[in-house]
Parts: sequence; structure tokens; C-alpha cells
Amino acid sequence: MEDFILSVCLAAKKASFELARYDTAQKNKILEHIADELINNSQKILNANLQDLDNAKNKPSHYQDRLRLTQKRIQGIADGVKEIIQLSDPIGEVLEQYKNKDNLNISKVRVPLGVVGIIYEARPNVTVDTAALCIKSGNAIILRGSRDAYHSNSALVQIMKDAIKQAGGNPDIVGYIDCSHEQAIGLMKANQYIDVLVPRGSEKLIQTVVQNSTIPVIETGTGNCHVYIHSAADLDMALNVAVNAKISRPSVCNAAESLLIDESIYQEFLPKICQALVDNGVKIKGCPKTCSVFGECEPATEEDYYTEFLDYIISVKVVQDYNEAIDHINHYGTKHSECIVTQDAKVAREFTNRVDAAAVYINASTRFTDGGVFGLGAELGISTQKLHARGPVGLKELTSYKYVILGDGQVR
Amino acid sequence: MEDFILSVCLAAKKASFELARYDTAQKNKILEHIADELINNSQKILNANLQDLDNAKNKPSHYQDRLRLTQKRIQGIADGVKEIIQLSDPIGEVLEQYKNKDNLNISKVRVPLGVVGIIYEARPNVTVDTAALCIKSGNAIILRGSRDAYHSNSALVQIMKDAIKQAGGNPDIVGYIDCSHEQAIGLMKANQYIDVLVPRGSEKLIQTVVQNSTIPVIETGTGNCHVYIHSAADLDMALNVAVNAKISRPSVCNAAESLLIDESIYQEFLPKICQALVDNGVKIKGCPKTCSVFGECEPATEEDYYTEFLDYIISVKVVQDYNEAIDHINHYGTKHSECIVTQDAKVAREFTNRVDAAAVYINASTRFTDGGVFGLGAELGISTQKLHARGPVGLKELTSYKYVILGDGQVR
Repeated sequence: MEDFILSVCLAAKKASFELARYDTAQKNKILEHIADELINNSQKILNANLQDLDNAKNKPSHYQDRLRLTQKRIQGIADGVKEIIQLSDPIGEVLEQYKNKDNLNISKVRVPLGVVGIIYEARPNVTVDTAALCIKSGNAIILRGSRDAYHSNSALVQIMKDAIKQAGGNPDIVGYIDCSHEQAIGLMKANQYIDVLVPRGSEKLIQTVVQNSTIPVIETGTGNCHVYIHSAADLDMALNVAVNAKISRPSVCNAAESLLIDESIYQEFLPKICQALVDNGVKIKGCPKTCSVFGECEPATEEDYYTEFLDYIISVKVVQDYNEAIDHINHYGTKHSECIVTQDAKVAREFTNRVDAAAVYINASTRFTDGGVFGLGAELGISTQKLHARGPVGLKELTSYKYVILGDGQVR
Repeated sequence: MEDFILSVCLAAKKASFELARYDTAQKNKILEHIADELINNSQKILNANLQDLDNAKNKPSHYQDRLRLTQKRIQGIADGVKEIIQLSDPIGEVLEQYKNKDNLNISKVRVPLGVVGIIYEARPNVTVDTAALCIKSGNAIILRGSRDAYHSNSALVQIMKDAIKQAGGNPDIVGYIDCSHEQAIGLMKANQYIDVLVPRGSEKLIQTVVQNSTIPVIETGTGNCHVYIHSAADLDMALNVAVNAKISRPSVCNAAESLLIDESIYQEFLPKICQALVDNGVKIKGCPKTCSVFGECEPATEEDYYTEFLDYIISVKVVQDYNEAIDHINHYGTKHSECIVTQDAKVAREFTNRVDAAAVYINASTRFTDGGVFGLGAELGISTQKLHARGPVGLKELTSYKYVILGDGQVR
């Protein structure tokens, strides 16, 4: 590992022990200062961002849009930090407390993870959002952002470090690493210093981290979500839910990418729902049966069923029954959010029991999978793995626990 | 991945969905049959084991001892399965249930992880112990045992599969892979089929898995555990705890490997405690101060402080105060079990807050870190990582959760 990376890792690890001892008031004071200094220094941030935007002027417009900061967006980021101040502090919570048969007093106490590493793309808001969540949950953070956002991130990190210092904290609790892709691979093996690595961004980024990291990873993100319309569905509700799941915000991970419908109802109902989707600008990629009853249909390929379009595109497939729907979802899905629309409680129960996903919906849009909506507060992302955290990763999901055992000389 | 490995993975994944739906009675029935058939077929197991022992006759005796099965050991394994039957089934537990602001009914429900992979050494008991824990927690299991235990493992797995079939279950819930080291590396990248990988064995085995696996790993095992004697300790208790932690079973991970003692008390007390250790057959590797007050002392190297001896050897170091003790432990320790002996409640609190380990003891031997002792029942091992599970990995630690959301047509 390069020296400059090692020194950030060492400093963060050291600072993490200090941060773990800050009480809630100290952590909130740091966050208050960060929120205030972001606003006070917004011109500095905007100037730095202009440099990045200038360098990225040949990139696609959606890329530039994600990279762009405005006064309003900076205000939004600062407001996000203030929201995190309002959330309750998970650290120190006693999860269990009991006396065992040896008369030992055993407590299971919530503690920070230690150092959280974030590897992300050219979205400068992630720099502050993730740092604030980590600080509140008592974790030091090491940020490795895209080089395309270098000036913006440097400005944001410097402002955060100054604010932490002003608040009496150790500025090393936020570390930033500007490095090449090859050097980032080295960072992914710094098990001694980083307790968990969270990739934030595209499927490609996530897979690079999963494939290369020896540090435990929380995999977040990809949502190839399905809406399945069962034969016993309330069809008005089904249309409403499916259209909402697809079009209310197609670029996010909890948007629907695929529609499944029972064979017994497709001939009459599928043309209606496809028309409603097309009327909202959605392109249909259908199975042969779908294309046979709806004209504006492009044949779906095997690849399409695996695809998270993140766009106004949906794959549509007619299935024999709920068994085929469940098998299809477990095969093609990404374990994110899956929905059945039905009035049959027994079928609904089979679906929720058998579908392997973080969030399984009966008669509601997949779009609700979100830390805020679920009552967890702000989130770092949606975990699609089963280890440690599943679904929204909020403050509690950024913690571990330790056993504290009080005895009076017991030996075994 | 080789075809024979792939076919075991595919079968286990498929069977895991079936197993996830078995109720407690079905799982217990399978475990009953396994326990009974192990006893009924003990001669077959012993014959197979003799073949393995014959092949291993040039290996060290402790290696052969771990490999050896006897009638009594088979009875012990079967009794272990029966104990797991008695434990309560974690699956289906509703961890949280609430109505959110959108009037959605949200439940957080405990579910199996799916498929658990176990990579282990030539200890045939692990084959059955881990399979029984996985079955009870609703997880299919893929076992990759040492080739040195091939005949024993094959016999045990065949008996388990037959027993599962007799009990009406799908025998594919237990998969066994006999493969080379290179092929095992391939298995460590089968993310599509295996949800979590647990290495069981030496530090070398664990590190091979950590370094190569792209599947999430639960790291278990290594315990470089310390007993720290603070200046305000009850010295009789301190001697008792330190000696017990070292000698009651030196080969296990929760045994003490290092003794730290405050400078203000070492001159008088250290010779006594070292003598007690030596009287129990322990070899002392000490810092210069230790060697200056106790004759039978070999100078400790830097390497010694990192070493899990798993033997009648202990490193001893005089520290200035509890701050140095905490820093030393956080630097050299393996985050397993750490102990302070003190009557000073404030210092004890500092120690438990600041020492980064799965289990932190005040005035009790580190030897208590164990699923059974902590009231979790049988365990798969002691996790020394902070993600997912820390400390004993019992049935609950072999589960994940899903959110089940019931609506009546809500859209966002």
C-alpha cells in the first residue's frame, strides 16, 4: 500500500478509538459545525465544483448533472446533516443484559464498527452524506471518491475537517484518499485498518469491490425489482401500483424493472396496463404472449430479464401461476424489492415466504424501500446481501456489538 | 468452476428454498433421524475413519487425534445433534412490526441466510456439528473438508443424507465437496450459490479464505487473548484468573496468551504469578522487566506478542498503566476475549469501553467465551469480525431478515 494511503488509514484507525468515546452531544456538535460551515463556505465549494465540471465538459449530461453542485444542492446537503443530528444515537444501547449460570453479568452493548470505507463515483453529495452518517454512528470514515470530483471533494473534506476541529474533535475521523484504480484495489485489502467497505454507485463499481475486497463488504444498490400481478389481484390497484413502481422515479434502485402477470388474466388486462405504461413514456420489452396482445412491444431477450434498466423501459412476462412468478424472481432478481398484487392472502403468504429479497410487498409499490420511509432515518444505501444488514442501511446497521462480562473472580 | 462443484452448489441452492419452508417439527425430525443413524451406523463410520487414520499415520499425533473417531466420540457428536434439537428455532421470529406514516404494515422477519459454506480441516466432528446447526437455522450447507478426512466425511455425509431422506427431507440440503486447494479457491467465488462462507480451523486456513473469498465471510477463531492485572486488582483473584485463563485448556481460542501487569505492582506480584504458571508447566516469555524479577524467563520477541501459542506458553509484559494496557491489546490482540482484573470500577469501564474485542471481561477468566456459556446454545465458532456476528455464532447468528410490507394499494 502506498505511503499516502497508509497514513490516512493509520490516522483514521487511531481517530476511530477517540470517536468511539464521544458522547451524543459531542457528535451532534461536530455535525452542527459541519452543516454551518458548508453553508458559510458554499462559494468555495461552488468554485471547486466549477473546476470539476469544466474538466468533465465532454462527459454525458446526466454525468455532469450528478457531479454538479448548486447553492440549493449545498443547502440540501447541509439540511441532510441536520436531519442526522435529530436521529437518536445508536451507540451504547444495551441490546441484552442477563446473568448466566456462572453468575456472570453479561451485557451485549452496541458499539461502532470502527472505520468505514466508502468507494464511490462522481457524486460530491455522497462525501458529506456518508461522513455524517458515520460520525453519528461513531465510525471514522475513509472516502475514496472519483477523481472527476476531486476539487469538489477536496473542498468538502477540508471544510468538514475544519468544522470538526472547531467543534473540538479529531479531524482524522474523516479521511480522504485521491488515488488511481490500481491503488484503490490496494485500499480494498487494508483489513487491518478498515472494518467494512461500502461501494456506492454502479453495478460495475460494486462488483469491482466485491471481487477485489478482502475487507467485509456491504453490497448496496442494484435493484432488478418485479411487480407480479396475480390472478386474484384488484386490477385497478394492480395498474396503479405497477405504473407507479415503474415511472415515479425510474433512475432509482427501488423502481420496477419487470412486470409479471398470470396467464389467466393477461389477454384482457395486459393491453390495458401496457397502454398505461406506454402513455407514460415507457418502452415495453415483452415475452411472445405479451407481444401477441400488445402491438408496441419489442421482444424481450434473456438478457433483458436480468437488466436493471434505470430508465423508461420495462420487461413484461406472462407466467403460468405464482410458482413460476416466484421462481422467475428468485432466478433473475437482485434480492432488493419485490411486489405481488393479490387479494388472496394465502398466495400472498407463499410469495412473501418464498421470494428471497430484502423487501417483499403485498399490494404496495416497490418504491417505498427507503430508510426514511421505513422509519430508520437517513440511509447509506439499500443492502441486497444477507449478511449483517439487509434493506436500508441506517445508523443501527452501521454498528456492531460487544459482550461485556462482569464477574467476581469466576474461573472455568 | 468444475462441473461436480457446480452441481453440488446448484442442488444446495435449490434445496435451500425448500428447507426455508420446513417448520420446526420437520427440521427436528431430520435432526432426530441424523442422531439415530449416526449411532446405528457407527461401525461403518469407524471403518471409514480407520482408512483415513491409516493414510495419516505419518502425521503428528495431535493431527491424528483430531482426525480420530471413537464410539464415544460418535456418541458425543450424536448428543450434540440432540442438543440442537432442544434449542428454539430462530426462523420466522418477528423482530419488529409497525405501521409507518404511509399506513403500510411493516414486519421485519427472521429468515435463513440460504446456503452456508464451511471450509474446514481434518476434524470429522465438524461435518456433523455444522450441518446440524445449519439445518436447525434453515440453511442448506456445503461442506468442503480436508482430503485427509475423506473417508470419514463421506461416510458421515452419506449417513446424514440417508437420514434426511428417511425423515422426508431433501438430501441436497447437505452437500459435500471433495476437491483440491485450487478448486476450493473457485468455490470461494461462488457468490451466486453460497450466501456466507465460514472457515473453521487454523489461522492459515482462515486467512486463505479471507484473502480469496468474494463471498461474505464470517471470520472465526484466532484468539490472542490478554489478562491485564491493574494496580487496584484483588491479587489472589488476579492469580487465580490468570492461571485459569492460561492453563485450563491451552489449545482453545479463548485461552490467554499474554499477561499484562501494572508497573506499580510487578516487582512484588509478578514473581508469584509467574511461579504459579511455571508450576503448572507454563513457559514464560517476558519483557526485560519481567525477566529482571523472575529467573525462568525467556526474553519475549515482538513476534511473541502477536502469537496465539495454543500451548503452555505465555508472553508477559509490564505496562505503565491501563492506557498502555489498552493500547497494547488493541495493537496486538485479535479482537476475541480480553480481561482486566481490578477493583476500580472507573478503570474497568474505561477498559471495557476502549478495548476493541468481541468479549471484554472484568474479573473473570477469558475461558467463558462460548455459545453455551453465554446462553446461545451450540455454536459454529467465535466471530472476531465486527460485521454481522461478533462473539459466539449460534443459531440466531446464522440468520438474516427480510422486510415484509403489507399495503392496500399504496403508491409513492
